[in-house]
Amino acid sequence: MRVTVLAGGVGGSRFLKGVRAALRDGEPSEITAVVNTGDDMWLAGLRIAPDLDTIAYALAGVNDEERGWGRAGETMRVSEELAAFGVGWPWFTLGDLDLGTHIARTAFLHDGLPLSEATRRITARWPLGAGAASIELLPATDDEVETHVVTDDGELHFEEWWTRLRAAAPARAFVQTGVEASRPAPGVLEAIRDADVVLLAPSNPVVSIGTILGIPGIRDAVATTPAPVIGVAGIIGGAVVRGMADACLSAIGVATDAAAVARHYGPRSAGGLLDGWLVDEVDAASAAGLEADGIRTRALPLRMRDDASSVAIVRAALGLAASGSTRG
Amino acid sequence: MRVTVLAGGVGGSRFLKGVRAALRDGEPSEITAVVNTGDDMWLAGLRIAPDLDTIAYALAGVNDEERGWGRAGETMRVSEELAAFGVGWPWFTLGDLDLGTHIARTAFLHDGLPLSEATRRITARWPLGAGAASIELLPATDDEVETHVVTDDGELHFEEWWTRLRAAAPARAFVQTGVEASRPAPGVLEAIRDADVVLLAPSNPVVSIGTILGIPGIRDAVATTPAPVIGVAGIIGGAVVRGMADACLSAIGVATDAAAVARHYGPRSAGGLLDGWLVDEVDAASAAGLEADGIRTRALPLRMRDDASSVAIVRAALGLAASGSTRG
Repeated sequence: MRVTVLAGGVGGSRFLKGVRAALRDGEPSEITAVVNTGDDMWLAGLRIAPDLDTIAYALAGVNDEERGWGRAGETMRVSEELAAFGVGWPWFTLGDLDLGTHIARTAFLHDGLPLSEATRRITARWPLGAGAASIELLPATDDEVETHVVTDDGELHFEEWWTRLRAAAPARAFVQTGVEASRPAPGVLEAIRDADVVLLAPSNPVVSIGTILGIPGIRDAVATTPAPVIGVAGIIGGAVVRGMADACLSAIGVATDAAAVARHYGPRSAGGLLDGWLVDEVDAASAAGLEADGIRTRALPLRMRDDASSVAIVRAALGLAASGSTRG
Repeated sequence: MRVTVLAGGVGGSRFLKGVRAALRDGEPSEITAVVNTGDDMWLAGLRIAPDLDTIAYALAGVNDEERGWGRAGETMRVSEELAAFGVGWPWFTLGDLDLGTHIARTAFLHDGLPLSEATRRITARWPLGAGAASIELLPATDDEVETHVVTDDGELHFEEWWTRLRAAAPARAFVQTGVEASRPAPGVLEAIRDADVVLLAPSNPVVSIGTILGIPGIRDAVATTPAPVIGVAGIIGGAVVRGMADACLSAIGVATDAAAVARHYGPRSAGGLLDGWLVDEVDAASAAGLEADGIRTRALPLRMRDDASSVAIVRAALGLAASGSTRG
């Protein structure tokens, strides 16, 4: 079975752990994660890729569960030096172990390798799959397309807006720098086209999933793949499960509401992306109207507290995918 | 008193500690170190400046005395990560504390500051001077002029030849990449011109002092300064005190001999650089002939085992400087 997942960082990593756990005991399956790279940035000559690292660490089991990002057992020897020099990005944590990843990636890039190959080499250190389930991480693009936020005080990198400003300065718009000339990374379009099912993780619909879809060719690949496309709401009862996605949704005029996000993605029958949409039980009533729009829905508890709850969500998504008429 | 010292890394740092110790209890004095930057390099996007760091750490008292380079109490958290990723430069140590310096410097450079200003900000963290003696570190140039070594197997960066190959591949020539368009860093020519004495540290005559002198304008500034110019031999009894300077000297056809190096620098009376030259006691006889060439010499123990022996050398150099006829 081939499952392709479009994913951001923290929510994406929990969801992917659920996908892996759901498939580890079955037939051999290939999971391909198409990962948001809009948060990537250069910091003092080093290439940082927050979402790729968050997912790799979580799947490798070396992540800091408590913080939700970064490596477990992290130390701050280098960052303390930077602070002593009066240098640093207090809004962005550079742990020593994490820095190893950034320097390794930067070294690969300087050697002329594309980000997708650098990612392959970095993740080769760990087994990311489990049992019958193998996992490959693909950056959405090898090109440097960074998400910038337009605020009333100017434009800044998404990471700075999100982490330093805590998304408090109202976002007027999101810009993907250089997106026009960008292309999907090798394997991305094929992974979407050749999948048995495509899943949209409950990641930020604007700056994670939306950013992936913004790379020319990816939205069209999702809209036209023969595989069923099932999304998972990251909003429960009108509130985001984690992060500050409401600050992003309001910038693009979408309500912080599970059904509103589904309509934003749109039904495939009308040129949109979704065959199915999972909502939390509390949103069952408001999501019912989506069926009439051509989006099959299922309601179940959507909080990913542990692998078991994530597995239940993934099984529901796969069940919803299988429930549709055969396509293609 | 204004003392300007041309210096490389390890030998330069010991000599500079001697200069500082010799002047700390006297009248207020300004020591300016013009430091070799030919060993500098980019490594995975980070700018490394081995000689500047070696000198800064030594003067700040945070250096590793035993190894002779790097920070005391160093750890290798980041480098162990790099090794786990199959990345790294086993021939070049990247300690965690040291990496803090590299990242800080790179951040300053990315902010558009020249290396000299980045160095000023980095060294501002510590008091480098002592008592009545203040010290400023100036890179020889703000431009990226790197020393490459031409071997029978091709050209490589000096640091790789020196550290990875242990200078075992015969050097046919040394090249300063981009030197033609380079300029001395701000303050360098003034420090040489306005000094009361200019000292050539017992650093490598080819790839440390020679590299500094290769930056257009610096050799001429030393040759024409009104200040007396005194050099200190880094060779005792036909053997280099530390490092592998013999492998460098042979490439330029100079014998590994204190008097031969003095003749390589040349007497100022014949358009060269030296008014005086300190040799070890064992080289007193062979150096005697230099007097006839116009280079005053003095022989004394030249091994810098501790501050006391370094101070004795510096006092001899200052004495030799004062013994000449008034110039300018």
